[in-house]
Amino acid sequence: MDAQPPTNHAVVFFDGFQALDAFGPLDVLNLLSLKAQHRISLSVLRPQEGAVPTLAPGLGLTIGQSVLPTHSFANAPPEIEVLLVPGALGTRDTKATQPVVDLVRKIFPKLRFLLTVCTGAALAARTGVLSSKRATSNKLALEWVVSQDPGNDVRWVRRARWVQDGNVWTASGVSAGMDMMYAFVAAHYGEDVAASIAATAEYTRNTHPTNDPFSF
Amino acid sequence: MDAQPPTNHAVVFFDGFQALDAFGPLDVLNLLSLKAQHRISLSVLRPQEGAVPTLAPGLGLTIGQSVLPTHSFANAPPEIEVLLVPGALGTRDTKATQPVVDLVRKIFPKLRFLLTVCTGAALAARTGVLSSKRATSNKLALEWVVSQDPGNDVRWVRRARWVQDGNVWTASGVSAGMDMMYAFVAAHYGEDVAASIAATAEYTRNTHPTNDPFSF
Repeated sequence: MDAQPPTNHAVVFFDGFQALDAFGPLDVLNLLSLKAQHRISLSVLRPQEGAVPTLAPGLGLTIGQSVLPTHSFANAPPEIEVLLVPGALGTRDTKATQPVVDLVRKIFPKLRFLLTVCTGAALAARTGVLSSKRATSNKLALEWVVSQDPGNDVRWVRRARWVQDGNVWTASGVSAGMDMMYAFVAAHYGEDVAASIAATAEYTRNTHPTNDPFSF
Repeated sequence: MDAQPPTNHAVVFFDGFQALDAFGPLDVLNLLSLKAQHRISLSVLRPQEGAVPTLAPGLGLTIGQSVLPTHSFANAPPEIEVLLVPGALGTRDTKATQPVVDLVRKIFPKLRFLLTVCTGAALAARTGVLSSKRATSNKLALEWVVSQDPGNDVRWVRRARWVQDGNVWTASGVSAGMDMMYAFVAAHYGEDVAASIAATAEYTRNTHPTNDPFSF
């Protein structure tokens, strides 16, 4: 439990983000706004104006959904405390995701917490802010994610549902983002709040960061 | 495995829908579009034009996200085979959700499958299409959901992660929609496809419809 739990959350989207990477943790935050003892806010960020699709060219998907941001990067609010970075096939497009990398690098010094899900860790690695830190990512994509670390000094954890190192939390693949967010909520808003949200959502939490059924 | 697995999927949204009710199953469908042996399509339906928010007045939430539909009900495509109906606090507004009830009642005779998640079952019950069928819903909301059945003849199942009765699949609360969708994908596109999607998403499936940790 945090004496001053964070108020201002944000999520950053890019074309081809994975729906559950974002909406798993965001659903937990939505319910947190109902159950926490103090107000929270959420900014939905996108590099440019306009809706952001999970479906992007060249990914091999034929269906997707589109989400409306609340802010473009140019007018992102200055007071963000917690930034969530989802992953997906869209992270493989290093040119298209460069604005996300630039934003994370720019605002990281003012963040209280950076959270990534799945291959969102590759975007964080490219910023340099994971340098010398322990981190994890989707196990099926881990070799590619490791290759995205320019300094080659991130300490990748191959058996982890999620990893916390200082103020950086990285989740393993897709669904792991929910377990990470429940752990984050428990740490900062209280285990009772996290348990209440999980009961409402009928979610069976994996509460052990090293309980990773998908490592190999 | 279905000799002719469905092609045309749709999801129906309304103000105050729950993000994970929809995006849990939709993320499975998105990955299905990458891994299935035949093309699938998805229509995102909303009663009117414009973005649909998870955040609606009077729900007690302070944060949410907004999704862009592909079709209003007035121009919904005629060839929908599978319709997914999420739930949420927004289902308590019986006036605001009446257009959803009307749509489900209208297109059900042409659907191959109706799927509901959480209190989406209350909307389905109001249409009458669950009459005499076995169905389930969120366990914390079940008494209210039962009260939404005008004929009082839905056979509510109190211990179920999900229930299949004929061409109607109903999931328990929020997260249960993912387990139901994996079971649906396994049944119609093959267990190998479902298992491959779960591995990509690092999702530990609850594969037993009566394994319900949230019944009481």
